[in-house]
Amino acid sequence: MLRPQGGPVDAISSTQALTEAERIDRLRLIRSDHVGPRTFCSLLGHFGTARAALERLPDLARRGGATRSGRICGAEEAKAELDASRKLGVNWLAPGEDGYPSRLATLDDAPPLLAVRGDAATMMRPMIAIVGSRNASGAGLKYAGQLGEAGFVVISGLARGIDQAAHRASLAGGTVAVLAGGHDCIYPSEHEDLLAAILERQGAAISEMPLGHEPRARDFPRRNRLISGASLGVVVVEAAHRSGSLITARMAAEQGREVFAVPGSPLDPRAAGTNDLIKQGATLVTDVADIVNAVQPILGRPIMYPAGETDSEPLDGAPEAHDRAQITGLLGPVPVSIDDLVRMSGASPAIVRTVLLELELAGRLERQGGGLVSLL
Amino acid sequence: MLRPQGGPVDAISSTQALTEAERIDRLRLIRSDHVGPRTFCSLLGHFGTARAALERLPDLARRGGATRSGRICGAEEAKAELDASRKLGVNWLAPGEDGYPSRLATLDDAPPLLAVRGDAATMMRPMIAIVGSRNASGAGLKYAGQLGEAGFVVISGLARGIDQAAHRASLAGGTVAVLAGGHDCIYPSEHEDLLAAILERQGAAISEMPLGHEPRARDFPRRNRLISGASLGVVVVEAAHRSGSLITARMAAEQGREVFAVPGSPLDPRAAGTNDLIKQGATLVTDVADIVNAVQPILGRPIMYPAGETDSEPLDGAPEAHDRAQITGLLGPVPVSIDDLVRMSGASPAIVRTVLLELELAGRLERQGGGLVSLL
Repeated sequence: MLRPQGGPVDAISSTQALTEAERIDRLRLIRSDHVGPRTFCSLLGHFGTARAALERLPDLARRGGATRSGRICGAEEAKAELDASRKLGVNWLAPGEDGYPSRLATLDDAPPLLAVRGDAATMMRPMIAIVGSRNASGAGLKYAGQLGEAGFVVISGLARGIDQAAHRASLAGGTVAVLAGGHDCIYPSEHEDLLAAILERQGAAISEMPLGHEPRARDFPRRNRLISGASLGVVVVEAAHRSGSLITARMAAEQGREVFAVPGSPLDPRAAGTNDLIKQGATLVTDVADIVNAVQPILGRPIMYPAGETDSEPLDGAPEAHDRAQITGLLGPVPVSIDDLVRMSGASPAIVRTVLLELELAGRLERQGGGLVSLL
Repeated sequence: MLRPQGGPVDAISSTQALTEAERIDRLRLIRSDHVGPRTFCSLLGHFGTARAALERLPDLARRGGATRSGRICGAEEAKAELDASRKLGVNWLAPGEDGYPSRLATLDDAPPLLAVRGDAATMMRPMIAIVGSRNASGAGLKYAGQLGEAGFVVISGLARGIDQAAHRASLAGGTVAVLAGGHDCIYPSEHEDLLAAILERQGAAISEMPLGHEPRARDFPRRNRLISGASLGVVVVEAAHRSGSLITARMAAEQGREVFAVPGSPLDPRAAGTNDLIKQGATLVTDVADIVNAVQPILGRPIMYPAGETDSEPLDGAPEAHDRAQITGLLGPVPVSIDDLVRMSGASPAIVRTVLLELELAGRLERQGGGLVSLL
């Protein structure tokens, strides 16, 4: 296992490496239609291996009412993606493997495979995220530099402004860029030099997107959950009302991460968002010591992985047609909890879970997180 | 009973008026040597009336080891002070009387008599204190004006800068100036016009000091406890590190009052103190609504008066000489708790309290608040 050298040390779970065959199967599964991180987790829990899940996909989707069969990623395609990635120095890693950030692995929508480029040891060190407005470069430099000196890895989004300043100021201490697109689609492209500098100096870049994936607007919030999720806490340096950084902060809070905010005068609109965060319970930061002191007690704590509603439970028997009709009838566009579905349907939890999985693989169900589902 | 007209209404305790004789006796008692607010309260609790306490003073002080007899304020002198005060429109009021701020009466060192000038009805309305640096006039104007519009009385210290701005902006809604000297010794003297304007417009001024008392440096912290104590909460608008406003804020917290602080950029030294207060748990304020929302639930709550360690308990028998020697032997310059004294001496609580009262009236004991005492 890779271990950080000196500086603060985060709790690290025991690691295990996938076989090449299992890595290919897992990549095939997550690249198949209607399989997102939560469904992946559910399928792996039900069937034990990605291979077994892949074999059952067509049947499950058909029962869920799929009108045309979803695409299943082939073994050759997956192998080609792994090979192409490796040529770029990118490894696809599963939660629990060396180089997969251990805090990120605790999310219930953690990427089943994460494309990691750079220094795996850096990914095992405690990380603090820095986000904020594009103009907050000065403060970004200050906090990022001091966090690096305190032994923390600074994680951010490689964007213009604060992200860029935070990465630059923490080059010496190690910094991680989280990409919204594939590793070969750097956005903005003028930051390719910055990324190169990061990778040269103990840093790393991560993405859950395939090579060749150009980032779209909707990929950024999705990416932001990785920034907050991989960190012990998120520092919001400046944020106006309704700024994107506030969404990242909310996500961080939902993920159980610390939220830090730098205050400002009520007369300064650039501080409206951070002041609001503090009102809502974020820790006020004027000094890096405020951040370090707050995360120190967490560092020692063992990392808790989500129990996973289905992880250890097999699929008990096949639902009957009337089960499917009844459970599907209880679903609509308004999210309902799985607990309520079990209660209202009178079916066993295992039957309800199976019907939901079938609907999901048929592209008819959306999981909202927090155990809520809705029909598409 | 006077009641506020419209606007938020604070919980008001039942009121009772003193007889003129009792008012004179109480003024004599608080004007006598070694009798501060806490001793006054203790004596009144022990002896039932100020008159009875006055009669026992010389004897108690002698037993406490007074080397020369302390001065006891005469009836003529007290009557003359009351008369001179009334000529200025100043009434000396006891806790529980109309015009004595009901929150102030809850302090364990509430002034036994408070010199009140101006509109007694204003004193019965809910008050918010505004303090801060001398330069914070702009913000002082904003918050004070809006608090006045929301129906709150703004209480402050008539000083230059923020106090002045807060009083001016809240003239229409009613504002209260708390003086560090006597009512005829306005400091700074150039604010006599401001005080006149306050008194003309539903406002009031209060002091616990006798007429003719010119304020000294040590009177200001003492005065500040009245500003925080009479209020529902204290708003600190701007405060550098180690500023006097922070002492007022700490006092407010000890008194169980809300503490509000206006944040600022970490780069602005004028915000260092307020940012620190927020770190320590003060409510961040960017808007008057933050203040109003926080105090709204308190307004309805019944006002709790301190139980008072001695209030309802008579002096049981006289301590023997060996009790005095033993209890005095346990005392020193380091404050000890009265509970510990009772435990260590083995004497009854009533005996310990009596010995302490004797020592106090002899000018040999200091009460620190929180049930702590030390030998002078």
